[in-house]
Amino acid sequence: MTAPGLFDEILARGAAREAVSDAAWLAALLETEAALALAAADAGVLAPAVAEAVGRACAPDRVDPGAIATEAAASGNPVVPLVAALRGVLRADGADEAAAAVHRGATSQDVMDTASMLVATRAVAAVTADLSAAADAAAALAARYRDTPAAGRTLLQQAAPVTVGLRAAGWAAGLDAAVAALRTWRPAVQLGGAVGTLAAFAGDGRAVRAAFARRLGLEEPTLAWHTERGRVAELATVLGRVGVAVGSVATDLVLLAQTEVGEVREDVPGRGGSSTLPHKRNPVGAVSARAAAVATPGLVAAVLTAASGHEYERAAGPWHAEWVPLRELVRTTGSGAAWLADSLSHLVVDQDAVRTALDVTGGLLLAENVTTVLRGRVDDPKALVTEAASTALDSGRPFADVLADALSGTDVSRAEIDAALDPAAHTGESAALVDAFLAARHAARHQEEPT
Amino acid sequence: MTAPGLFDEILARGAAREAVSDAAWLAALLETEAALALAAADAGVLAPAVAEAVGRACAPDRVDPGAIATEAAASGNPVVPLVAALRGVLRADGADEAAAAVHRGATSQDVMDTASMLVATRAVAAVTADLSAAADAAAALAARYRDTPAAGRTLLQQAAPVTVGLRAAGWAAGLDAAVAALRTWRPAVQLGGAVGTLAAFAGDGRAVRAAFARRLGLEEPTLAWHTERGRVAELATVLGRVGVAVGSVATDLVLLAQTEVGEVREDVPGRGGSSTLPHKRNPVGAVSARAAAVATPGLVAAVLTAASGHEYERAAGPWHAEWVPLRELVRTTGSGAAWLADSLSHLVVDQDAVRTALDVTGGLLLAENVTTVLRGRVDDPKALVTEAASTALDSGRPFADVLADALSGTDVSRAEIDAALDPAAHTGESAALVDAFLAARHAARHQEEPT
Amino acid sequence: MTAPGLFDEILARGAAREAVSDAAWLAALLETEAALALAAADAGVLAPAVAEAVGRACAPDRVDPGAIATEAAASGNPVVPLVAALRGVLRADGADEAAAAVHRGATSQDVMDTASMLVATRAVAAVTADLSAAADAAAALAARYRDTPAAGRTLLQQAAPVTVGLRAAGWAAGLDAAVAALRTWRPAVQLGGAVGTLAAFAGDGRAVRAAFARRLGLEEPTLAWHTERGRVAELATVLGRVGVAVGSVATDLVLLAQTEVGEVREDVPGRGGSSTLPHKRNPVGAVSARAAAVATPGLVAAVLTAASGHEYERAAGPWHAEWVPLRELVRTTGSGAAWLADSLSHLVVDQDAVRTALDVTGGLLLAENVTTVLRGRVDDPKALVTEAASTALDSGRPFADVLADALSGTDVSRAEIDAALDPAAHTGESAALVDAFLAARHAARHQEEPT
Amino acid sequence: MTAPGLFDEILARGAAREAVSDAAWLAALLETEAALALAAADAGVLAPAVAEAVGRACAPDRVDPGAIATEAAASGNPVVPLVAALRGVLRADGADEAAAAVHRGATSQDVMDTASMLVATRAVAAVTADLSAAADAAAALAARYRDTPAAGRTLLQQAAPVTVGLRAAGWAAGLDAAVAALRTWRPAVQLGGAVGTLAAFAGDGRAVRAAFARRLGLEEPTLAWHTERGRVAELATVLGRVGVAVGSVATDLVLLAQTEVGEVREDVPGRGGSSTLPHKRNPVGAVSARAAAVATPGLVAAVLTAASGHEYERAAGPWHAEWVPLRELVRTTGSGAAWLADSLSHLVVDQDAVRTALDVTGGLLLAENVTTVLRGRVDDPKALVTEAASTALDSGRPFADVLADALSGTDVSRAEIDAALDPAAHTGESAALVDAFLAARHAARHQEEPT
Repeated sequence: MTAPGLFDEILARGAAREAVSDAAWLAALLETEAALALAAADAGVLAPAVAEAVGRACAPDRVDPGAIATEAAASGNPVVPLVAALRGVLRADGADEAAAAVHRGATSQDVMDTASMLVATRAVAAVTADLSAAADAAAALAARYRDTPAAGRTLLQQAAPVTVGLRAAGWAAGLDAAVAALRTWRPAVQLGGAVGTLAAFAGDGRAVRAAFARRLGLEEPTLAWHTERGRVAELATVLGRVGVAVGSVATDLVLLAQTEVGEVREDVPGRGGSSTLPHKRNPVGAVSARAAAVATPGLVAAVLTAASGHEYERAAGPWHAEWVPLRELVRTTGSGAAWLADSLSHLVVDQDAVRTALDVTGGLLLAENVTTVLRGRVDDPKALVTEAASTALDSGRPFADVLADALSGTDVSRAEIDAALDPAAHTGESAALVDAFLAARHAARHQEEPT
Repeated sequence: MTAPGLFDEILARGAAREAVSDAAWLAALLETEAALALAAADAGVLAPAVAEAVGRACAPDRVDPGAIATEAAASGNPVVPLVAALRGVLRADGADEAAAAVHRGATSQDVMDTASMLVATRAVAAVTADLSAAADAAAALAARYRDTPAAGRTLLQQAAPVTVGLRAAGWAAGLDAAVAALRTWRPAVQLGGAVGTLAAFAGDGRAVRAAFARRLGLEEPTLAWHTERGRVAELATVLGRVGVAVGSVATDLVLLAQTEVGEVREDVPGRGGSSTLPHKRNPVGAVSARAAAVATPGLVAAVLTAASGHEYERAAGPWHAEWVPLRELVRTTGSGAAWLADSLSHLVVDQDAVRTALDVTGGLLLAENVTTVLRGRVDDPKALVTEAASTALDSGRPFADVLADALSGTDVSRAEIDAALDPAAHTGESAALVDAFLAARHAARHQEEPT
Repeated sequence: MTAPGLFDEILARGAAREAVSDAAWLAALLETEAALALAAADAGVLAPAVAEAVGRACAPDRVDPGAIATEAAASGNPVVPLVAALRGVLRADGADEAAAAVHRGATSQDVMDTASMLVATRAVAAVTADLSAAADAAAALAARYRDTPAAGRTLLQQAAPVTVGLRAAGWAAGLDAAVAALRTWRPAVQLGGAVGTLAAFAGDGRAVRAAFARRLGLEEPTLAWHTERGRVAELATVLGRVGVAVGSVATDLVLLAQTEVGEVREDVPGRGGSSTLPHKRNPVGAVSARAAAVATPGLVAAVLTAASGHEYERAAGPWHAEWVPLRELVRTTGSGAAWLADSLSHLVVDQDAVRTALDVTGGLLLAENVTTVLRGRVDDPKALVTEAASTALDSGRPFADVLADALSGTDVSRAEIDAALDPAAHTGESAALVDAFLAARHAARHQEEPT
Repeated sequence: MTAPGLFDEILARGAAREAVSDAAWLAALLETEAALALAAADAGVLAPAVAEAVGRACAPDRVDPGAIATEAAASGNPVVPLVAALRGVLRADGADEAAAAVHRGATSQDVMDTASMLVATRAVAAVTADLSAAADAAAALAARYRDTPAAGRTLLQQAAPVTVGLRAAGWAAGLDAAVAALRTWRPAVQLGGAVGTLAAFAGDGRAVRAAFARRLGLEEPTLAWHTERGRVAELATVLGRVGVAVGSVATDLVLLAQTEVGEVREDVPGRGGSSTLPHKRNPVGAVSARAAAVATPGLVAAVLTAASGHEYERAAGPWHAEWVPLRELVRTTGSGAAWLADSLSHLVVDQDAVRTALDVTGGLLLAENVTTVLRGRVDDPKALVTEAASTALDSGRPFADVLADALSGTDVSRAEIDAALDPAAHTGESAALVDAFLAARHAARHQEEPT
């Protein structure tokens, strides 16, 4: 575990960062070369002892990462110097046969792409874990505040009552969908040799490829995908969907934490304070999650652009162009997931503030409901309500009083008016929707877990 | 069917364009309002006769698209003026009860989002059809040229032999994967009322929603997704993957059609000529498909950015920001799919040119193979081959001759050398890989079709 | 003027839309062909009468846009069928010499690119006009509310006092900078012939090019820029900066218009209402401007991707890929500018709400200032203030009262405390900053106007 | 200088990488805090000795980067822990007054943004140096190959002759324009205090700000730009234009280096070889430059998205979202510039291959010219040439022979035909265009250099 970079704890938080670090990449490259040799032995084209010697040489402590990084420039990828280094290690050990067997039959891209799938598999697992934690925290809020009425807002204007729980269920639904998307992505090994024909395996290529996939726990593709980058594009877009899911929730949290709204705050001792402004309680978690979401779509576009231009049997630029944006995409979306899980699991709902917000409009929040109630009781309920709302807004008088005046000649009582204006009584099917969501979530979870 | 826009036949070709036209949107909006009323009747909360009156009014010829477009600015969406227009139509017919029932319980976003799903469903079907045609054409090339050796190229340098069929199988694999991705996307209705609680349905909301989904052939979501835009993001990213699949194939075609390569051309009489340059045969289809792929990733980013910032119960900008980029994304990827299908189905492989290209390097294309053949026959086969290749490159002499000289003191015969340099004999497992791909493709197709 | 498209009045508002319409493009293409013939006459390589005949034929009413659009697919651009149509028109008029002179020496891209610069010039002028109007409206607010204290907010938390005018000055500064960027962009003609050598002009190419530029009021480039797309990239990025400027202001407006803040509203009769929610006053202008800003960066990326991949003397896809994203970029940023100008010029500042917001924190907004005031008067002013702030926050007691208790043993009087907590007295150098900004703005304007 | 990361020498080459490293950022942050204290002294609001003590403490070896990075998460930016660390250092030195003076009057964003401008200034200088070197190398090629005819290609089809020099001049023109754009960008200090009012400076804010700018060599802005991100957007877009300029040239180089074209190669001993394919000479420089260009537009979009969403007086996410994409944008475009300079300065033009390419079409490359020559000599020159071209293409006979047959009954001699088909005689105004370009370049350079 290396020290974090200057911005890493803010913008590359969580376990995903280490999963795509240089050390993780190097380990995956070595693991890939080892598996390749052992797979050749499995397929009977390499002596087991030789393969095992190769496997033993493929240890991070036997190669110099700095030298590999520096020499990578000459060929345009780190596999060429890595293979040379491994051969050097084996020759120094007197294992010339093993030295010659390193990388046999493969091309650099076979190793880079397979290693990238190992790296991505672990990175996706890290993002998935953090995102699931965020989803669980949101679902817990949905259950806890299932019946707590709150002001619903459209275009940032108070509109009609919702419940805190229904809003949180919506958050959980989005996060769950992104988790499900992460789980559908399937990594595969890459093995085709120089141009995808497996020619250097002298007929045993598919057998080696099958063993290679089995050893690494990755899928075996029908064809080499050196320039068919559907898997890479899918990975990028699934991560893009993580950004979308995180972004909307984080935006809600930042808005709900506003001084003038104050319905939530992140309760993490020692965090979010300001040295110059002692009263501030910044929602650092939600802010940082939001920052990740903002940076995500451009990174997705960068990977898609790279993926869509691969030429012939190996791309002249687009392949290399995938590496950094894809890594940043993992770091960024992983950070968003980690921060959001942190924020949601420390979230405090200020029920007084929630209640206060319901009264901000002096009852106008229930205007739509009054129209419904008056249907059949007065001639044109909508016109009456619209005029009363307008009068209340302009005069500052309580809506209930204005309505009472307007309905004075009718049989609609003040009690009826007050009842029509009670937010708690008019949250529609919120509770049932929350229940249905939580039940479906519970069922899905049971389905995906082994029995 | 309206006349095409100035660039439409180049950049918005195929059936997808009409599927997302203003006329298609208006029809979908009307279909949605009709289904809403009829669903209310299904759920027993509206008299069937009234619902049917609403349904009859929802006809494109009864509303003025220009007026709706102009009035949409006042509220920020076209549903408000559309509903007003429908009510006006019904009132003019004397159907006041039906007029009052139009749009009952719904919010504008319910109708816009549901209509967008209808539009997208048809657009995705159009893109899928064109992309499937492209994939089928590529698969046909894979079968036909299964055994035709060709120069494989990495970083645009000739590297080692492949077959025309194996390259085409790679194209088909990428296109098939994008088709499969399009087929996994699931559209759903949107129905939540003002803030997602279904409050205005007085308890019958879920029943209406179920009927609404049934009538429109869309999924019923557990919760309203007014600000949970996973579905929209998924649609955008699936289309992004179409762009990736199209782009790589189109790039290969443009490169293969180069004057100096000439391995393929598009055989479409009257197309691709140049008025000033009579000898030119531009691969217009592949060029246009490539143009679509280039424009795609930015559009995906635009939709993802919009989708990730939705606030509370209805977004203040991000929702509107989805409409145009999503439409352009459909038009663009649909165009890419249509042009690629056109290009691939008119593709002529110039076998002489394919053969000529194999000889361009004077045998060096097989250098890797010679190394394999000499293993155990000479001391350091790789050093020998590398030096011979270098000599051949620098002197311009045929590689076979240089090798023969270098091997004169060994028991390697000239016939063996010539055999080692025969491209047709060294395409590795190409044929088996093509067969495996086509068999898997055949099996998948049978699986997905109804028996 | 054609009827607006379904979403045009929301997402493609303002004069920019017409400036990039099909009709505008067709007019620019015709204007370009006419100027080319007349420039040839200016350079003495075409008889003036023949050039004038060409010029007269280049009229929108003499060609069929639908036919040109349909036939454009065969060659991949609309210039080929347009030239054919013009020749047909002239031949039908019996002007065979003029028919042969149409387009002489030029290639399709010369005409498309030059026309695109004419279209862009007018589009940029339209965007500039709307953006300048927005900037002027913001500057007027800066002047008017120069001394109106308001709650400053960081990370959406109240932080310390600003003035309404200072915030508006910041808006104007950003918009002014984007206007300045639009004004630095310089369009140029394109003229190089088939491959940029001007070969078909038999030595008179540069003379024709100079006359061509003069007639169209565009710059003359040193070289053809068929595949050197710096100008296109610059245009896209300048428009991208418009999006950035619009987005931040629109976001502030949407936030300030929130029900719980209510410091501003758009006062446009008949707009922003909701049929079901009679109390709502949606800031439609700011919301729509924001939608434009959200969609902008992806479109910039699309144009940059296209611009960065042009091959040799004419690109095989990237050129075509510029057309639609560039048009959408103009429509979108023009819409953002138009809506923002509309919003800002109808903006009503609710001074009561501004004042109310200053009191929301019960004085904590001035906490930083109290620390400053107590410096030298108590031992550790910051610790004292931090504790008092914390007590006030937790207990709900007014900050002034808590401070008075904490300072009871000191010589700091209650009057001093109250003075320290007066927002109007602690807006720093806001007024001077606004004055400096407005003075600099006034000076810049005088400089750029002709005397 | 730290060891390069695993992909750095391929994807973050050149001096720009170090300019945006963590170490460079930390140094800039310290330099900013020092300048702030010294500026306060300049303005007479801090004792010079105290300011100097602060300045001395601001040394990289006195703070622990890892600790700052770790603690940054609590507040969401590294300035808060950096200030605490500096105060600790000074208190440990017994300099309590200096400890208290650190950061006085400023907010974290003042320091981060100003440091970012210092970092960017140096990064832009690094990118400019590499890009200028690339432009100079291209201009040298333009001069050297001013008169070397070559096949011009449109849509990757041979079209008509150009010169190697004219194509290189086009490369230089694009690179020069990007250099010029980099030079127009103007960084400025940021200083506004908590909310931009300079309130904590008690009236001396503007004086401190002026001294601050003077000390750092940056511009002084009229207003704080905490949420007005025009400068950041401009920086990103200028870098985006670098990517566009680099991309087109690198694409040409990769294409020209194709085995079947072979007009150029990068002559760097030990680079571009392949261990398995001894004959390959990969253009690693151009390939890596192209990779950078491919990744650029998405990064620009990410920065623009962030820049366009800043709220009120400090953004809740968008500000943080700028940091990483902007850093990657510098690393990526700097890498592209460095690799392109490397490639162009080692570029070898294979004049034999250039000549060979001119003959590939058997004379058809000059078809347009033959039409020009025959004007007035035969009835319908274009029809004649078109038919002859078609016959030559289909039969494989030399175009000259086919033309001679077709013109047998006319007074056009074989010598005239051969002359018309000589590429060297038909490069139009290429030489004059190159001269004009180089002269303008020379003049511009003299203008910008101090005399």
